Amino acid sequence: MSKKNVVLAFSGGLDTAFCTVYLREQGYNVTTVTVDTGGFPPEQLANIAALSSKLGAVAHHTVDARDTLFQGYLRYLIAGNVLRGQVYPLSVSAERACQAVEAVRMARELGAQAIAHGSTGAGNDQVRFDVAFRSLAPELELLTPIRTLGLSRQQELSFLAERGIHMPPKLGSYSVNEGMWGTSVGGRETLDSWSALPEAAFPGGVIPTDLKPRTLTLSFEQGIPSALDGEKLSPVKLVETLNAIGRTYGIGRGVHLGDTILGIKGRVGFEAPAAHLLITSHRELEKLVLSGKQLFWKESMGNLYGSLLHEGHFFDPLVKDLEAFLTSSQERVTGEVRLVLHPRTMVVEGVKSPHSLMDAKVATYGEANVLWTGSEAAGFAKLYGVAQMLSHRAKGG
Amino acid sequence: MSKKNVVLAFSGGLDTAFCTVYLREQGYNVTTVTVDTGGFPPEQLANIAALSSKLGAVAHHTVDARDTLFQGYLRYLIAGNVLRGQVYPLSVSAERACQAVEAVRMARELGAQAIAHGSTGAGNDQVRFDVAFRSLAPELELLTPIRTLGLSRQQELSFLAERGIHMPPKLGSYSVNEGMWGTSVGGRETLDSWSALPEAAFPGGVIPTDLKPRTLTLSFEQGIPSALDGEKLSPVKLVETLNAIGRTYGIGRGVHLGDTILGIKGRVGFEAPAAHLLITSHRELEKLVLSGKQLFWKESMGNLYGSLLHEGHFFDPLVKDLEAFLTSSQERVTGEVRLVLHPRTMVVEGVKSPHSLMDAKVATYGEANVLWTGSEAAGFAKLYGVAQMLSHRAKGG
Amino acid sequence: MSKKNVVLAFSGGLDTAFCTVYLREQGYNVTTVTVDTGGFPPEQLANIAALSSKLGAVAHHTVDARDTLFQGYLRYLIAGNVLRGQVYPLSVSAERACQAVEAVRMARELGAQAIAHGSTGAGNDQVRFDVAFRSLAPELELLTPIRTLGLSRQQELSFLAERGIHMPPKLGSYSVNEGMWGTSVGGRETLDSWSALPEAAFPGGVIPTDLKPRTLTLSFEQGIPSALDGEKLSPVKLVETLNAIGRTYGIGRGVHLGDTILGIKGRVGFEAPAAHLLITSHRELEKLVLSGKQLFWKESMGNLYGSLLHEGHFFDPLVKDLEAFLTSSQERVTGEVRLVLHPRTMVVEGVKSPHSLMDAKVATYGEANVLWTGSEAAGFAKLYGVAQMLSHRAKGG
Amino acid sequence: MSKKNVVLAFSGGLDTAFCTVYLREQGYNVTTVTVDTGGFPPEQLANIAALSSKLGAVAHHTVDARDTLFQGYLRYLIAGNVLRGQVYPLSVSAERACQAVEAVRMARELGAQAIAHGSTGAGNDQVRFDVAFRSLAPELELLTPIRTLGLSRQQELSFLAERGIHMPPKLGSYSVNEGMWGTSVGGRETLDSWSALPEAAFPGGVIPTDLKPRTLTLSFEQGIPSALDGEKLSPVKLVETLNAIGRTYGIGRGVHLGDTILGIKGRVGFEAPAAHLLITSHRELEKLVLSGKQLFWKESMGNLYGSLLHEGHFFDPLVKDLEAFLTSSQERVTGEVRLVLHPRTMVVEGVKSPHSLMDAKVATYGEANVLWTGSEAAGFAKLYGVAQMLSHRAKGG
Repeated sequence: MSKKNVVLAFSGGLDTAFCTVYLREQGYNVTTVTVDTGGFPPEQLANIAALSSKLGAVAHHTVDARDTLFQGYLRYLIAGNVLRGQVYPLSVSAERACQAVEAVRMARELGAQAIAHGSTGAGNDQVRFDVAFRSLAPELELLTPIRTLGLSRQQELSFLAERGIHMPPKLGSYSVNEGMWGTSVGGRETLDSWSALPEAAFPGGVIPTDLKPRTLTLSFEQGIPSALDGEKLSPVKLVETLNAIGRTYGIGRGVHLGDTILGIKGRVGFEAPAAHLLITSHRELEKLVLSGKQLFWKESMGNLYGSLLHEGHFFDPLVKDLEAFLTSSQERVTGEVRLVLHPRTMVVEGVKSPHSLMDAKVATYGEANVLWTGSEAAGFAKLYGVAQMLSHRAKGG
Repeated sequence: MSKKNVVLAFSGGLDTAFCTVYLREQGYNVTTVTVDTGGFPPEQLANIAALSSKLGAVAHHTVDARDTLFQGYLRYLIAGNVLRGQVYPLSVSAERACQAVEAVRMARELGAQAIAHGSTGAGNDQVRFDVAFRSLAPELELLTPIRTLGLSRQQELSFLAERGIHMPPKLGSYSVNEGMWGTSVGGRETLDSWSALPEAAFPGGVIPTDLKPRTLTLSFEQGIPSALDGEKLSPVKLVETLNAIGRTYGIGRGVHLGDTILGIKGRVGFEAPAAHLLITSHRELEKLVLSGKQLFWKESMGNLYGSLLHEGHFFDPLVKDLEAFLTSSQERVTGEVRLVLHPRTMVVEGVKSPHSLMDAKVATYGEANVLWTGSEAAGFAKLYGVAQMLSHRAKGG
Repeated sequence: MSKKNVVLAFSGGLDTAFCTVYLREQGYNVTTVTVDTGGFPPEQLANIAALSSKLGAVAHHTVDARDTLFQGYLRYLIAGNVLRGQVYPLSVSAERACQAVEAVRMARELGAQAIAHGSTGAGNDQVRFDVAFRSLAPELELLTPIRTLGLSRQQELSFLAERGIHMPPKLGSYSVNEGMWGTSVGGRETLDSWSALPEAAFPGGVIPTDLKPRTLTLSFEQGIPSALDGEKLSPVKLVETLNAIGRTYGIGRGVHLGDTILGIKGRVGFEAPAAHLLITSHRELEKLVLSGKQLFWKESMGNLYGSLLHEGHFFDPLVKDLEAFLTSSQERVTGEVRLVLHPRTMVVEGVKSPHSLMDAKVATYGEANVLWTGSEAAGFAKLYGVAQMLSHRAKGG
Repeated sequence: MSKKNVVLAFSGGLDTAFCTVYLREQGYNVTTVTVDTGGFPPEQLANIAALSSKLGAVAHHTVDARDTLFQGYLRYLIAGNVLRGQVYPLSVSAERACQAVEAVRMARELGAQAIAHGSTGAGNDQVRFDVAFRSLAPELELLTPIRTLGLSRQQELSFLAERGIHMPPKLGSYSVNEGMWGTSVGGRETLDSWSALPEAAFPGGVIPTDLKPRTLTLSFEQGIPSALDGEKLSPVKLVETLNAIGRTYGIGRGVHLGDTILGIKGRVGFEAPAAHLLITSHRELEKLVLSGKQLFWKESMGNLYGSLLHEGHFFDPLVKDLEAFLTSSQERVTGEVRLVLHPRTMVVEGVKSPHSLMDAKVATYGEANVLWTGSEAAGFAKLYGVAQMLSHRAKGG
């Protein structure tokens, strides 16, 4: 009887290395799939492929999913100005959803009978992977060795060492997870709510004291970032460039204390220069071109989109409805934003758009204008207050 | 026949100076009322009183409404983490509502037959005053000479000069409106959307390059700011102290492009150190003590509260319902937040509370814990995804 | 110098008859446009055309806008299950918006320089027409003689009588406004909140006591009603048929007490059989095919869409964003609903769809099933409650 | 070593009868607690107590929780006008939460070490009980024999029969769950979405054809139902009376197709006369006394409150915040509503309140009034439309 084929979402870390060997020994042909959502330099991708082979996988595939990540997730996070708790860019949840979708795609292309991930039973990722795999490919057997066996890190290392595989020791005292939309940083200090994560713990390190301000101009077309300082760039290239520039200034750094799918609170450091630069700029451009009512309701709808993504509800059809709402809202979000970078922060200097609603030719706020007279304004203010006046009177006010 | 008494909300600027004289000449006994919501140093209040007398008012009253402003408005803006467009602190709308309420109170105490304000027909303030006056005191005649006459600044100056009253010339090229919750700055650059307001235009001026980081610890009790670096302070004193400290660093500065009640867009510079320090800290403390569902819905409810206040709907009974919601939500928002001030920004370092929901004794995010097993997590993840799985299947996915 | 051409939205009632003559005498060439949104039998349209000519209009046009009304408004009211206060179908607001758009279209086609409506200053319609005309055709002069002159009904009758035009006396004691999506009824009883509108006041009259129950099957395709008892019908034909059938049973009748744009409350009787039959059926079908999260959020979004339409904000771009949301949500709203009509009400008996999420093959509520085990359910329930458990503990509960 | 004491939430049905014996045999002292939320006539409560004794419980307690149910849950369901899917009254979820809270209270009073329920792993109730027990009494051992053992109905019957206990056979072909806020009905027809539940399946049975219309007047005080036809009644007595009256007419009957906590759809018949009569009346009274903005936002907040209760999130602190919001909103919901009952439906005839916002003395909708002039209305309509006009222009419209 022939062996079953399993596709394993493979990061090359200890957990997925263990899974590769363990599943092989359980009688599976293991194909490892690494979905690149921006965190991997080329040499690391090569190392991962080599490791997979050494672990005994029958095949290894690398999927460049950076543009897929942008088109399927990040564009909506920008459209919705989604920063969880007003700071955290939801990088991990977008990456996991994207990785899960790509892993399923590969499993189907390769005719696999099973699909596996290496998440533990302690975090959000197991839920995101499980939900995605079951929603998109209910016909595949779902394997989660790390969660099922509940082994310690040391037990996994021993298991591999017994088979002659020695994983490189963890470098540094912080666990860092890098991706296109942000890098997360965990360490001793993030285990409680009071300790400060030192600047040196972030990939960008200690922020120099002698940085000069730097001006950037960002362009958007229908809500999609399209150019930097006038030079057209693909979204992926633009995000990567902004990460490189912003990292030096410590833009988009912070520590977020948030709710997990599992009901407990968690704390995590993050460095997300591009996400902060783009969302801050985009929000400002929206203030110029969207109506007040659009701005009000987009705030809630963007927050909702972010929550669904974060909480592993990405495959609920409501997400598509929100994407339709957000896409419609971006019709006129075309224009430019000028920013100045300073250490740790940015200042929005100005914004312009062919669809600007701020038009000095017809009206300037606070000045007499061609749109109405004082007498019309008085009539407006009177009727505007009728409901409140009647409410107050009925109260006996 | 006796003259009618009118109470005039009086700032001591050109418009209300004009109104005082004009209403007097129209046959009213004018009582001027200056409601201090934080923008006036003592000497300025004395000058205003002197001006009122010179203009021929029969009486002048100063109302110290700083604590009233805090208890009736700012505490809810903090509870709701309200920053319009994520930046602007709604200082002006809170002040106007508060000033209108106090002016009505004075008019009633003084037995006035009329009430007046000096707003033009071009801005939000006319609506806020009209609505408040009509809701709270529909029996009073409402007088709005500036809007009714539609005079230019020059015409008003001439009118007063003809009567021997010479208003001091406007200082500087920026119009600055200072209050406890923020200072707004308007000028040539804010008339369009692209020009940058220079640092020198802000009250705090150009930010020094050699500032050292400064650590602050802010305490809250049930959502109300209560202490700085361990020293208990009244809310008013705390806000004023934070404004003084934060101004040096350029904290809470920016330019906001927003929607007016009148349907046009307007742009305004602002400097609001206390508002930004308090709201940023408060939001972080809430992340530690509120449930995820509270955080999600408070975001919308706070946004709604801010919109109602901004748009002159403060006397709609819905506002009281939102206040009840917000007050309830603050029951456990007690604790401390540690911040570090840097030029132009602040970094939240840590937060703690007796009601903390982050408890390393029972569970640490991402690590095995006493609350559940891997097998229970697997069951959870399975049922958690049932609806999405069925939805996907029904789609033919 | 040539006369200016004005297009007048013309219903053939007293107000618009007056406007035709008055505007003519003011020196305009008046073209009357009657936009048929379902309330007019053919003979009435002919009478209206004849009246226009008699009043001296240079031309008269009838626009059959029934399908336009459905495609541009009613389909979204169905998609959103919009019944204001859970009862009132928003017929008038949809009709006015549609009539305004069509009147503008005609004014442009005819090269008019002005556009006019006959609404008074007392109701919602003036706002809806003004906003629509100004948004869509700001270049046209806007004329509103009835509001401007503020004449009484008797003054208008005299004005016309002096010119030899005698309008037919009002029939009956109720003012009835009929349209495709509902008929509104006003009378003495609706002037206060306590009096009952008698059955005889409604177009359908007193409901017979001997009606037999009647079963109907309604079909929908992507949220659009498409067939009755298996027979495919155009939306317009289907709505008209349902109105005829439902009227006999007194389906969709009621009195609504609601908020006007002007801040006061108003009360109106309505008879809207098709709206009630379609929305009740549609809502039930959605329960079968949409996710719980879609149902929850559609409730708010539909309510919002209805409010914007009712309150004269139909030309805010937010409306398009909501339409995109609603359209997306209807992707799978295809299927059949079986209803039984009884006097004054209907009973939904059953619903089915190719996209049904209720699938006895995988799971029946309350019974053991193939989707999960008791042990998995226990794990689910445990983690599902972690956040609440921790919240309760932190409270000291 | 002494036996552990367990409190078992006891309905007297097969599942909890099994649990009593099973837990006793597992070495527990079993105390049965029956929490009466309105479904039990006195003789049934006596039968349940006798059964408990026969099953070997060491003690049995009956808790009359009808008023507790009203004060802690139903009053908010009325305040929020909560009907799930616009029809279903959430009777079961309110009862289960209330029963769980009371069972915990008893367990603590009795010093129990464990707490148990008899829910299966297939439905919502297990989640509601588990969450409540763990949130309120995390120190108690949680026992769920039915879910853990996964026995069939026949296996439970055999287990009991072997011990000489013969449960009465199920009567009729429908499973009926009666409570104060509604009776649910399940049967063969509710297993799919298309079959009709016959009238005879409902407790009220087939609706007579010769019923005469009956007029009722319901009074509310601050949102709490307080009198029927002028006679003051306690809420519990009022609900019970309305159930008796309304049942004859078949008021508040239907079949609901809804989402379960577990992610699948379920269908259930219900008969809830009091809930429908009270909510319909209450909503109408609110239209008279609340502002338009309150009505709009209460719709969403009530829907949210209902969802949290239904989905087993009742112990999330957000629920208290919503209760505060709802309570505040009811401040002026005092007045009377006149209804006419007809077979299967009711007609709201009129409503009145000392806080009425519909005041013919100042304004009647559609007629000239003392609040504004036509010219003021024109000014209002002009400014009201400025934002839309500018938006349209910027679009190139």
